Amino acid sequence: MKFSPLLGELISALTCLPGVGNKSAQRMAFHLLERNRDGAMKLGTVLHNAMEHIQHCQQCRTFTEDEVCEICRSPKRQEAGVLCIVESPQDVLAIEQTLSFGGTYFVLMGHLSPIDGIGPADIGLTELETRLKQEPVSEVILATNPTVEGEATAHYIAQMCNSLDITASRIAHGVPVGGELEYIDGSTLTHAFSGRRKL
Amino acid sequence: MKFSPLLGELISALTCLPGVGNKSAQRMAFHLLERNRDGAMKLGTVLHNAMEHIQHCQQCRTFTEDEVCEICRSPKRQEAGVLCIVESPQDVLAIEQTLSFGGTYFVLMGHLSPIDGIGPADIGLTELETRLKQEPVSEVILATNPTVEGEATAHYIAQMCNSLDITASRIAHGVPVGGELEYIDGSTLTHAFSGRRKL
Ligand SMILES: [Zn+2]
Ligand SMILES: [Zn+2]
Repeated sequence: MKFSPLLGELISALTCLPGVGNKSAQRMAFHLLERNRDGAMKLGTVLHNAMEHIQHCQQCRTFTEDEVCEICRSPKRQEAGVLCIVESPQDVLAIEQTLSFGGTYFVLMGHLSPIDGIGPADIGLTELETRLKQEPVSEVILATNPTVEGEATAHYIAQMCNSLDITASRIAHGVPVGGELEYIDGSTLTHAFSGRRKL
Repeated sequence: MKFSPLLGELISALTCLPGVGNKSAQRMAFHLLERNRDGAMKLGTVLHNAMEHIQHCQQCRTFTEDEVCEICRSPKRQEAGVLCIVESPQDVLAIEQTLSFGGTYFVLMGHLSPIDGIGPADIGLTELETRLKQEPVSEVILATNPTVEGEATAHYIAQMCNSLDITASRIAHGVPVGGELEYIDGSTLTHAFSGRRKL
């Protein structure tokens, strides 16, 4: 005998969560049963609702339960004429939290990766090209990650922008504010030097 | 704008899990939406089922969806005439995994704690006394935790057993197998010395 069948099912279902192995799943199951049945019921309901109704925004591809997300619906943001390209909805969130960007987004939901068979169509670049042709975008800010794939993706989109006569810019990479030089990796330091500005 | 309302609800609902703060909940929500919607739907269903149907065994108080759990239903285990008292269902599991105990259990779902207002009735000691009077139990093994409260609880139950003429024993506490003496705390070492056996 290990667990009752239903308790076993609960523990195994909890391991679908990232970073949750069998041991933590056990701890979670017992915690919910002993102390938070209401919270667990509520989580069950919200999981169903969210998985059924949260889809991709038809314009920027971020997650939303609306056809077009709140940011894309905002006239003020559309008027800004600046489109920021990111790899994931989490990146949108991180940028929004800085309150320093007032344009709209396009979420690739990944990056180009020929090795994994991920080409331009898989990250929505066909839709992006259509948008760039139709909308009055004056600048595209490329905020993909500073990885090999992120850089390659940024380059690909920059070329697309060039052929459409739209300014493309890349966010700066360098020493993080508050970061200590001696602990920064070499590649970041190289970026920091080559991206230096006159004072 | 932070998240779409439903995504915000999902993230907040996930924080009902122990050890999951806002940041991990975000990570979990995005992971499920991007990569495992089926798993999330399944988890939602199992959470509902488990919270609705898993209750306490009417005999031993462990978690089960049956009226009486599998262990309590086993004639072989009843015949053993040995009742092991533990604080939680997780303790039952830990003991079962050793395959070294063939009797039945009684799960207190806690321990005596006068400071928190937890008295004998709150940890099922009334039911336990009834069981001890009705069933042919020849020995009660006290496997509560080696904490102040666990020891007090064990003592309380031992006195109950004495008055009913039933042998009560306490599991041994000492140096864990494979443990190195120099790293063992003093209280455990004291237990290990006072519990020494002749060779
Ligand atoms: Zn959108
Ligand atoms: Zn039982």
